[in-house]
Amino acid sequence: MQHPAPDTPSRDRPEQASSGPSPRDVALENIVMMTGLGRYDDVRQLLADFHPADVAELLDQLDEPGVRQRVFRLLPPEAASAVLSLVSPAVRDELVADLSDRELAGLVEELDTDDAADLLETLPEERTPTVLAEMPSELAEEIGDLLDHPSDTAGGIMQTEYVSVPQYATVEQAIGLIRRAHDDVPEVHDVFVVNVERHVTGILPLSYLVLASPDEAVADIMDRPVISVPLEMPQDEVARILQKYDFVSVPVVDGQERLVGRVTIDDVVDVIEEEASKDIYAIAGVESESINLAHDSVLKRVGERFSWVVMTVLLGLVVALVISKVFVATFEKMALLAAFLPVIIATAGAVGLQSSTLVVRAIALGTLSFQRIVSVIAREAATGLALGASCGLITAAASYLINMGTPDILNLSVAVLIGMVISVTAAACVGTVQPIIFYKLNRDPAVAAGPLVTAFNDLLGTTLYLVVATAIQA
Amino acid sequence: MQHPAPDTPSRDRPEQASSGPSPRDVALENIVMMTGLGRYDDVRQLLADFHPADVAELLDQLDEPGVRQRVFRLLPPEAASAVLSLVSPAVRDELVADLSDRELAGLVEELDTDDAADLLETLPEERTPTVLAEMPSELAEEIGDLLDHPSDTAGGIMQTEYVSVPQYATVEQAIGLIRRAHDDVPEVHDVFVVNVERHVTGILPLSYLVLASPDEAVADIMDRPVISVPLEMPQDEVARILQKYDFVSVPVVDGQERLVGRVTIDDVVDVIEEEASKDIYAIAGVESESINLAHDSVLKRVGERFSWVVMTVLLGLVVALVISKVFVATFEKMALLAAFLPVIIATAGAVGLQSSTLVVRAIALGTLSFQRIVSVIAREAATGLALGASCGLITAAASYLINMGTPDILNLSVAVLIGMVISVTAAACVGTVQPIIFYKLNRDPAVAAGPLVTAFNDLLGTTLYLVVATAIQA
Repeated sequence: MQHPAPDTPSRDRPEQASSGPSPRDVALENIVMMTGLGRYDDVRQLLADFHPADVAELLDQLDEPGVRQRVFRLLPPEAASAVLSLVSPAVRDELVADLSDRELAGLVEELDTDDAADLLETLPEERTPTVLAEMPSELAEEIGDLLDHPSDTAGGIMQTEYVSVPQYATVEQAIGLIRRAHDDVPEVHDVFVVNVERHVTGILPLSYLVLASPDEAVADIMDRPVISVPLEMPQDEVARILQKYDFVSVPVVDGQERLVGRVTIDDVVDVIEEEASKDIYAIAGVESESINLAHDSVLKRVGERFSWVVMTVLLGLVVALVISKVFVATFEKMALLAAFLPVIIATAGAVGLQSSTLVVRAIALGTLSFQRIVSVIAREAATGLALGASCGLITAAASYLINMGTPDILNLSVAVLIGMVISVTAAACVGTVQPIIFYKLNRDPAVAAGPLVTAFNDLLGTTLYLVVATAIQA
Repeated sequence: MQHPAPDTPSRDRPEQASSGPSPRDVALENIVMMTGLGRYDDVRQLLADFHPADVAELLDQLDEPGVRQRVFRLLPPEAASAVLSLVSPAVRDELVADLSDRELAGLVEELDTDDAADLLETLPEERTPTVLAEMPSELAEEIGDLLDHPSDTAGGIMQTEYVSVPQYATVEQAIGLIRRAHDDVPEVHDVFVVNVERHVTGILPLSYLVLASPDEAVADIMDRPVISVPLEMPQDEVARILQKYDFVSVPVVDGQERLVGRVTIDDVVDVIEEEASKDIYAIAGVESESINLAHDSVLKRVGERFSWVVMTVLLGLVVALVISKVFVATFEKMALLAAFLPVIIATAGAVGLQSSTLVVRAIALGTLSFQRIVSVIAREAATGLALGASCGLITAAASYLINMGTPDILNLSVAVLIGMVISVTAAACVGTVQPIIFYKLNRDPAVAAGPLVTAFNDLLGTTLYLVVATAIQA
């Protein structure tokens, strides 16, 4: 049991996470310095004290690719493979480019199959087959199969390492199987009990095995019936199941209900974080979740953001066209109307963003009750009305005070009041309904909460305000 | 081992999560119907087949509080306590209000201490001491201690149920201790090895105990040194540590490094989701993460959102004041300028939101490198410039085409071009810098990414555009 797999590490680390400014940072500095001096044996010794997750952080922080590659090559294979799957994408690409196919295959072999597949997925497309060709054929085939599953499904996040025992086994036999599997499956979590067709008929948490007597039958102590997930289940649903039932692992089954792998709780943690990031970026109108703020080029950044920004511009140009052709006379009669356009746009935008974000998050967390959808929309509309009315009163009063003595001041204030109420209420409705429609159409609701809804609300707010103002002038 | 604690349930559930339209829904409907008919014994039998997480979902979905309370009272105590800690806050408040202090105390006792403390925290303040008074004094004291820790720290999310063994123990003795503790600690995960001062000197994953021979000393097989977390560590840092090192549990220690509890991976999943929600809501400018879209009153919704909306209005009124007093003549000379105000505001707002969201998420995920902060800001500024220039050219061209033949058309287009470039670049800079400043001041960076930064960018965009327009007119 002293052979933890590289990516499921034991706790051998020198420092309490609880201590203050970490002696780790000092040691890391030493590593860089000694690498510079060519004292490689000392570096190797120092590196041995660190958890791969810490070495990965160090490599991410290093400024010089040359030093990074030298430090990386001083790591023993188990550590190197773990580090490779833990560094940031940019650093990984750089390290991988420096390795031959054979070297890379050697490192990939050390990883659990799910991490191996994830790593291979980041390679330039033409390299995956050549690296797989350097690996033992059985393992290459297993990993190749994993690569065929979409990466955001149960099949894409599962690992094929697990411990299964036949249902007629005794506790002692089960422990024997765990022992034999231990090099491949260091983190067992749960043992899966299977019948001859490889259907999972029960689950054995490790604690059951610890507490049972050796000659008990596993079928007598296992948990039944079993919750399993199909290969094609989306990863967020898989995560939701582990979370809901407080499982540490769940079996993955194929179309014939046969056991093919497992998803463990540490994968779920990553999935939940990934899904949250996706939503956040979608709301903000950024395409990719993988922008590295320090490293990525301006060109890449512009590329990931341009389409949403241009959509905003185009909707804004519709507003410009409408004002230019229809409402310019309204402004000519009363230029002061322009002074209150920004506050109405900004307020409607803010309220619309609130509504859409609440709906998107509720959908993501599974707390939105679609049976009560009418009540949800009605209450959000009422909330928009209440917010619009209070903001309208404040803004109308302010418009009166700021421009006291101006002719037509009352017209201005009334236009501001009504314009604000209508715009904000409409924004709350649009913000609520748009993500729900997207969800019902099987599109990502977070996309509907982003710049699209904001730009749409800008358009709506401006038009409604100017319609009211024009009507009052007439 | 057939006594899973109510909140760390075994897998006894009737259905494959993989199957389609669930027979569960049908059964749930039956439960409601039979409750209506008063066939309580049948309901009890049906309920016994369901996981508490599913019963909680059912109760959340029920429309009639009367039916809900009757179903709840048919549950056996272990299930009832688990259900109570799993239902939505609104439903929990309602069920709790229907229970006497003694009844509630009986249910709280069944829970793990962390869930018990969480439940007591949701009670009306004056009720917590009266419920605690009905509980065994030792347990009441333990839970009272947990309530004293801020709920978003290690002390606030830990449980005091764990298994510890003295470091001179053998594997056999350790297993004996696990067996004795089993009613209290059904999910062991890791055994903590302690010395006489209760310092954690090693960690024993359960698999080590399964694989070792009974007479081995735990000190010989345990993992060392140990990573532990102090009581006051913020919950997101605790989550980060379990995630980084792939731990399933981590010991919590007090100021004297003594073992006082543990945080398990399932708590971490909740923390990560909670922190992501917090960020999302902060970016959207909503105060609370607990708005229930179907149930909460309009008054509560307005309350949670009003302060951010008003802040937007106030900043907007500053813009209105500036335009009214300084730039109204600019509009009087050329009303068409107003037509392009919305598109400039919206674009600057969109780009600013992108920048601030990227920074906030990078801070939350721990991927923002503060050593490279100058490079981060410079690249975001350059990205803003590139986006501003392209949007400016598009908008200027459009302004020319839309208003061809108007006098001063060239002035308008130039003002639009320069105004857009400057506003968007400024928005990217503000969006990047503002969350970083908030973070450095130990305030929540997500708050800086929300309506505040958007409203500020509106102000900036409008003013810059009008300054340019006025300068060109002069």
